[in-house]
Formats: sequence, C-alpha cells, structure tokens
Amino acid sequence: MGHDRPKRLSPEARKEALSVLSGWALVEGREAMSKRFVFRDFNEAFGWMSRVALLAEKLDHHPEWSNVYKTVVVTLSTHDAGGLTELDVRLARAMDAMAS
Amino acid sequence: MGHDRPKRLSPEARKEALSVLSGWALVEGREAMSKRFVFRDFNEAFGWMSRVALLAEKLDHHPEWSNVYKTVVVTLSTHDAGGLTELDVRLARAMDAMAS
Repeated sequence: MGHDRPKRLSPEARKEALSVLSGWALVEGREAMSKRFVFRDFNEAFGWMSRVALLAEKLDHHPEWSNVYKTVVVTLSTHDAGGLTELDVRLARAMDAMAS
Repeated sequence: MGHDRPKRLSPEARKEALSVLSGWALVEGREAMSKRFVFRDFNEAFGWMSRVALLAEKLDHHPEWSNVYKTVVVTLSTHDAGGLTELDVRLARAMDAMAS
C-alpha cells in the first residue's frame, strides 16, 4: 500500500504501550497482545467487529480474533515485523475507543 | 423468538447430515461440527462473515468462529439442545452456499 511497515517496538516502548492500554496483556510464548471484549449481545459484538474490520482493511493490518455470541477475543501482532509495533498499538486504541 | 427450539439429532440423523455436508467434521470431545473456510483475502473472509452474521441473527443461532486474515474456522452446535440439531445443519448449508 506504499506505507512503510512499522518497526518492532523496543522492550521499553512495548512496556509503556501496555501500561497505557487498558485490559491488554502480552500473550504467553509469542510477541503479541490479547484482550477479551464482552458486549451486550451478538448484535453489538458483530457490529463492533464490522467497524474494526473496516479500519483493519484501511490500515492493511488485521487482528486475529474469535467470537462466541457476545464475546470477542482479539490477538494483535505484526507478522512482517515479527512482533508488536506501533500499528498494533494504534489498532488496539481504536478497538478500545469503538467498544466504549 | 417464538420458534420451537430444535431437538438434538439422533446418531443416525447426525451421521447422515455429515455425509451430505462437505468439509464439516465432528469436533473431538464435544457434540459439535467444525469447518475451515479459506477465502482470497480478508475482504472476502469478512464479507462472508457479515452475510453469515445477518442470517445467524435472523435464526437466533450463532456460530463460534475465529478469523485470521483470509481464514475462518467455524464450530457449530446448539447450546440449548446440548448437541447438534437441524439448526446447525441449516446454518452449515447456508455457510457453504454463501462461500461457493
């Protein structure tokens, strides 16, 4: 898409990003972060997923996620960079904002 | 929604349903069936999920599913009935039709 791919965050930058984000935690065994979102029902959960999907497509950066009725579990990582980048932080922030 | 909830399929009916469906397999350790759908890209994968979501909401019967870029893994079971029902078969057939 002509964008520069972001670089992997340093351990310090990663720590700072996670301290600011609410409810996101590092995944065991890989450099990724995860959060469980719980909505009122499927309508709200999938409505939120649809808004996130539009943004993900625009950013050319996609979440790994699973949905069971009103719950969505999201994992973010930047495959190209082999770990967490600014793009993950940006998507996480947008997901939080859209869920609030 | 005023609908009668469907009854759990007999082992014979379950076997017959699975023999007709393409690519669906019983899940180990629980009465559910699963299939992995692979699309061209995220746009196609999420577009398909959106169509399925509208139907799921209409049927008041929702899949368990996870999505990573162009892949969607779906598990179907009817919680209320404690296993597979005609509703799962109906949703599976619709998913297949929408993906083809």
